[in-house]
Amino acid sequence: VTEDDLIAKLQAITSRAAPNALLVGIGDDAAVWQPSRSHRSVITTDALIEGVHFTRQSMSAADAGHRALASNLSDIAAMGAKPVLATIAFGVGPAADEAWILDCYRGIAALAERARCAIAGGDIVRAPAITISITIVGEVRASNLKTRTGMLPGDTIAVTGPLGASRAGLTVATERPELAAGPAAAAALRAFRTPEPRLAEGRWLAASRNVRAMMDTSDGLSTDLARLARASNVGATIEAIPVAECARALAPAAGRDAEAWALDGGEDFELLVSVAARAFTHLAGRFHARFGRPLIRVGTATAQAGLRRSDGAPVASAGWDHLRAGE
Amino acid sequence: VTEDDLIAKLQAITSRAAPNALLVGIGDDAAVWQPSRSHRSVITTDALIEGVHFTRQSMSAADAGHRALASNLSDIAAMGAKPVLATIAFGVGPAADEAWILDCYRGIAALAERARCAIAGGDIVRAPAITISITIVGEVRASNLKTRTGMLPGDTIAVTGPLGASRAGLTVATERPELAAGPAAAAALRAFRTPEPRLAEGRWLAASRNVRAMMDTSDGLSTDLARLARASNVGATIEAIPVAECARALAPAAGRDAEAWALDGGEDFELLVSVAARAFTHLAGRFHARFGRPLIRVGTATAQAGLRRSDGAPVASAGWDHLRAGE
Repeated sequence: VTEDDLIAKLQAITSRAAPNALLVGIGDDAAVWQPSRSHRSVITTDALIEGVHFTRQSMSAADAGHRALASNLSDIAAMGAKPVLATIAFGVGPAADEAWILDCYRGIAALAERARCAIAGGDIVRAPAITISITIVGEVRASNLKTRTGMLPGDTIAVTGPLGASRAGLTVATERPELAAGPAAAAALRAFRTPEPRLAEGRWLAASRNVRAMMDTSDGLSTDLARLARASNVGATIEAIPVAECARALAPAAGRDAEAWALDGGEDFELLVSVAARAFTHLAGRFHARFGRPLIRVGTATAQAGLRRSDGAPVASAGWDHLRAGE
Repeated sequence: VTEDDLIAKLQAITSRAAPNALLVGIGDDAAVWQPSRSHRSVITTDALIEGVHFTRQSMSAADAGHRALASNLSDIAAMGAKPVLATIAFGVGPAADEAWILDCYRGIAALAERARCAIAGGDIVRAPAITISITIVGEVRASNLKTRTGMLPGDTIAVTGPLGASRAGLTVATERPELAAGPAAAAALRAFRTPEPRLAEGRWLAASRNVRAMMDTSDGLSTDLARLARASNVGATIEAIPVAECARALAPAAGRDAEAWALDGGEDFELLVSVAARAFTHLAGRFHARFGRPLIRVGTATAQAGLRRSDGAPVASAGWDHLRAGE
């Protein structure tokens, strides 16, 4: 297969994903679009590497594609934005034959279509391992933009879902395949392989002035909440760790601590928000009514820097660090 | 070194590169900017992989960074656009220590600053080889946008500079180090390691209505001109191949054909344009006066599909194909 042949096949797979936003798509030196005049543009990039984030054994090609796009969409959601378009730099490793690449793009395209995100272009190169680098451009009303710097002491800290399921799924997929039967394992593997970015939730939360800061939980609550607090020049107390049911069910058999999975595991791609305390109960009630799931309180922002438990014990940022991992 | 520490150092290195375009830069879930209301936005992505595009022996860290950004800026130039911002997904291979990474970002930042392109964010991940995936967003007036589809039969085809120097430099750097002394080798190595994207030339050419189509020569004239002609539903005759002086000087000692380097070599990052024939002489004169270099005629667009020499002999697209290369 030649590069031009493959690009033509990929173009066919990805062309259904919201082509209307694009004036020029795949096949030119660059893609072209018309940004909305009333909005700000946002951009984020994230890479998924074979042997680091996944293996051909731990994920199907379509799941790897889904996962690569989902982590980027989660960053777009965390800004309160909606996606517009994505570009994909695809490194063809020795383990990626044409069928694998096409299935991977099908996984990307299926999620992109649901998220109304056009696939605008990309680059195909040889690489020593499969490398999926995705960049997404999104748009947000200036008044809805949520950064990491707005958290104030006294704010209620909450997440859009329980944590630890993705790490439980990683453990089942890579270390304990004998635990893979049953509904808890299925839920955990789904969370690990095909996480659902909280796009609708992010846009809804961003529209509230009482939501003062937002980010996504990609590297673990203990790491991400510390980053959020530091960016806002505050600290935080963790009062309750919401553990996903499937993580709680699987941890004993795996010889692990479900709460540690939830605190440090990462890749859950839930949104982490800081909400004006007096508004939290009302906002959480409306969130539940709108999405059928609770907005779960995890703690309180503090004037004192650092991350602590309710009893004052410090919490270490033991989540995923890409440069420490594997050392 | 932790991921957060490294990101802080990279932020310091890249912060001088045109930060004004950005509302939110490195350190949040995504970067935020305000697109110009009167312009279209363009986006392109390109990856540079250790062992495929470069080795630690063939390029310094700063040159690899420059080269990775330059190939993306060349695509922006080929749309007639100016760069606004870039994101970098950096895969840390075993050969990349902290000093190498920082030097690489210094190479990126130096070129970005000259090109007035902000470094807006990125992702740092472990990888089996050094992987530099860059995405650039640019802007162009709608009336100046140049795609690949506007070439008409009878158009004059031209390039912004002679070709083959980069391939000569690759040969010296990777196969024939004994040829590395002297000014011809220095020029060839410079073309290979630190190519200069034709941003000013691209914007100037894009402003002319007589320039009907434009792309950059990244995969070799024989491949790129065939793509340009095919996208425009025409063919082309190659009448003269402009060979870079340094390539002509180095080819005999390397036992290679300088014209083949110029035709098939690729990575010269000159712009390839299709110009209304009656306007070419005047445009080329103004180009020379403006940039101090000739706009070099290479051939003529034809109604008949395919690529030919003046004597009718077909020209094969023997340039770089990322999926064929190395097979």
